[in-house]
Amino acid sequence: MSRTIRPALPVLLLALLAPPVRAQERVSDYRDVANRIIDAATASHRAYERLGDLVDTFGPRLSGSVALERAIDWILREMEADGLQNVRGEPVMVPHWVRGQESLELVVPRARRLPMLGLGGSIGTPPGGIRAEVLVVSTFDELEARASEARGRIVLFDAPFTSYGETVQYRSQGAIAAAKAGAVASLIRAVASGSMQSPHTGAMSYEDGVTRIPHAAISVEDAMMLHRMQERGERIEVLLRMEARTLPDAPSRNVMGEIVGHERPDEVVVLGGHIDSWDVGQGAMDDGGGVVAAWEAVRLLKELGLRPRRTIRVVGWTNEENGGRGGAKYAEDHAGETHVLAIESDGGVFKPLGFGFTGTDRAFAIMSEIGRFLERVDAGSVTRGGGGADIGPLMRTGVPGMGLNVDGTRYFWYHHSDADTLDKLDPDEVALCVAAMAVMAYIAADLPEALPR
Amino acid sequence: MSRTIRPALPVLLLALLAPPVRAQERVSDYRDVANRIIDAATASHRAYERLGDLVDTFGPRLSGSVALERAIDWILREMEADGLQNVRGEPVMVPHWVRGQESLELVVPRARRLPMLGLGGSIGTPPGGIRAEVLVVSTFDELEARASEARGRIVLFDAPFTSYGETVQYRSQGAIAAAKAGAVASLIRAVASGSMQSPHTGAMSYEDGVTRIPHAAISVEDAMMLHRMQERGERIEVLLRMEARTLPDAPSRNVMGEIVGHERPDEVVVLGGHIDSWDVGQGAMDDGGGVVAAWEAVRLLKELGLRPRRTIRVVGWTNEENGGRGGAKYAEDHAGETHVLAIESDGGVFKPLGFGFTGTDRAFAIMSEIGRFLERVDAGSVTRGGGGADIGPLMRTGVPGMGLNVDGTRYFWYHHSDADTLDKLDPDEVALCVAAMAVMAYIAADLPEALPR
Repeated sequence: MSRTIRPALPVLLLALLAPPVRAQERVSDYRDVANRIIDAATASHRAYERLGDLVDTFGPRLSGSVALERAIDWILREMEADGLQNVRGEPVMVPHWVRGQESLELVVPRARRLPMLGLGGSIGTPPGGIRAEVLVVSTFDELEARASEARGRIVLFDAPFTSYGETVQYRSQGAIAAAKAGAVASLIRAVASGSMQSPHTGAMSYEDGVTRIPHAAISVEDAMMLHRMQERGERIEVLLRMEARTLPDAPSRNVMGEIVGHERPDEVVVLGGHIDSWDVGQGAMDDGGGVVAAWEAVRLLKELGLRPRRTIRVVGWTNEENGGRGGAKYAEDHAGETHVLAIESDGGVFKPLGFGFTGTDRAFAIMSEIGRFLERVDAGSVTRGGGGADIGPLMRTGVPGMGLNVDGTRYFWYHHSDADTLDKLDPDEVALCVAAMAVMAYIAADLPEALPR
Repeated sequence: MSRTIRPALPVLLLALLAPPVRAQERVSDYRDVANRIIDAATASHRAYERLGDLVDTFGPRLSGSVALERAIDWILREMEADGLQNVRGEPVMVPHWVRGQESLELVVPRARRLPMLGLGGSIGTPPGGIRAEVLVVSTFDELEARASEARGRIVLFDAPFTSYGETVQYRSQGAIAAAKAGAVASLIRAVASGSMQSPHTGAMSYEDGVTRIPHAAISVEDAMMLHRMQERGERIEVLLRMEARTLPDAPSRNVMGEIVGHERPDEVVVLGGHIDSWDVGQGAMDDGGGVVAAWEAVRLLKELGLRPRRTIRVVGWTNEENGGRGGAKYAEDHAGETHVLAIESDGGVFKPLGFGFTGTDRAFAIMSEIGRFLERVDAGSVTRGGGGADIGPLMRTGVPGMGLNVDGTRYFWYHHSDADTLDKLDPDEVALCVAAMAVMAYIAADLPEALPR
């Protein structure tokens, strides 16, 4: 009993004795604790090591897979062992797409097995595959201009990477545009800013009323080569085989644990990343690292005995990659709760630079002020605009949100490919991400006044 | 008749009228012609485009393959069309190793298909493959210390890349060391300074009296992962299948063309690279680019009407990768000829820095002096020591030799892998390599006095 009353006493005294102040003025009081958190976070490689345990043991974790659910079971056990509170998995039904066997053979003008990855949600080919001539285009406009040549062919979009937002359109919309032009299948140059014959998968869309055709990514190298062959006037023929199919929705879970607030337990600062990944590589960067860094941030606060006024909850959302069902279900399940702030890491746990924040000017000023404590590790830049796919549904209900910003130079070399593996991350940089998230989450959860909306 | 006499006249006059001078003093006379060569070489992307034609059309060109011989046939036709003289293929018998189908499956502790490449010269496995527990070591010393654990296992050498010369020992000697310890097969971490799950092949050796076991490379990522698994105390089991075998030696050719010298046609400056490659990617960097840049250098001299005193010969040596038979046979076939200088490009046609030269001090002084003409394109650094695998046999007979030095930062990312493709090269940088080789070859072939030995 005394244990539950004691922590509230200093707060009560403070409320009685101190004049009312604006929250910003309180931020400066947290310098020492921020330093303590940073020192502790950067003194170990615990997040990196735990991430290694996760991704080596379970591998990639596509929605609907046994690996994803086993990884979630393990996280639940580990969070319990860490002493987190209210550890649980909240049920979410998720799409269940499976890749099956797949291959792409260049048949004419010369034989070569082209490394490829079917895109998430694509249908498969007939069992014997689809053999057809290839039409290479660089853009949707070029396809429109050459639509008469596309009928009965496989269209390859050889769109060079400019920005992810721009180039990813060929992944998401390519099958629709190609089918409208009468193509029997479509291929894209992998959406990647660097390549070693490594195709990259990712989500794609169909449109009602438009024929569904198989859609896959090939390597940057091979897309460029096929384009050069076409420019030389060569006829190009490939044989595409894909067993891809979508099964009925499968059960999954948003996995979470908490440090319950000592003063306002019903007010929540939530932080995390998504625990699902594509079905290649290890999903270490996208987004095992985000989940584990947020989890380690909370575990570390617990270890340091830092129990804030409000509840801090770490969540591994499920099904970010091909459905976003985890983030949506979380917002729905927790609609009755007051979320003070939502923090997501889904850009890789590389060297942290700071955070992108979405919220009111007053809240932005407070978060920027907290950010200054991170300047000693060069991670203090809080900029306008930011969030994450998983916290998006929550943010749309008015919850202030922010995303961890990192040095993303190499992110799109590995993203959604077999090369998204632990070794791409640096243990010290991961520790800095932990520090950044822990400082932000703790202070936002402990400030006397809730972050203004 | 007059055509053969006329070019010699100014030289005769010069010999009669001018006092004897040291060759170094003549080098300065070549500034204008060097500038003309550089201007012409850098005004087009002809070498890059021709390299694209070569590597896209024929693909990789392993010794013994149809692709290699077809590529050589094409080069012969093209050199004739360029108007080069004495275009020919000189017969060489080469080793004929074939990869066949191959795969490596991680079976325990979790299923994963590990990208792999059998190493050149390796034997295959029995048809059902070899399933065994894996022992991971970092070094030969560690294997020796743990030899008792290696019996009946597959040894994986997880040796991080330090320098090629050091790390490649695990590729060349790994199967011998593993077999001596009783292993049933051996694997190496790909010899690469950067990776996106891309294994790298290359030559390996067996030793008489030591059991021959299959030997293959896996990706850097997977080697590190298996090592981490072992460090966690996990049992690792893989299934290795390789159809690799060595067939009887096959006929190939050293392919060459010339500009015959107008004064001393029997004295030769030879330049080139190797036309064979490993059987993955395109062999664009290693070494299609070297052959094509040297070839373009000679074609360009011809186009510019620059016929030097001595003969300039461009050679595409065969079988550098797994035997070195082309370079050896060339030295043997041309033992009666006077080679003034041999130049090789086999480090990728990236941004050229200059040349590494092996020869006497006087010859080095002359080549350094010629190098100054290349300072305007930052490629003028001539350093001590250098050559190439194909010109090695020639150099061992006393011929001065030099190798093109380039910015090799990314060379070992792609080397011997499926990612050695045209797109890794820059058309302007390739043109600079052409300029550098053309200037060196032309002036060395035209100096009144032969390069001193």
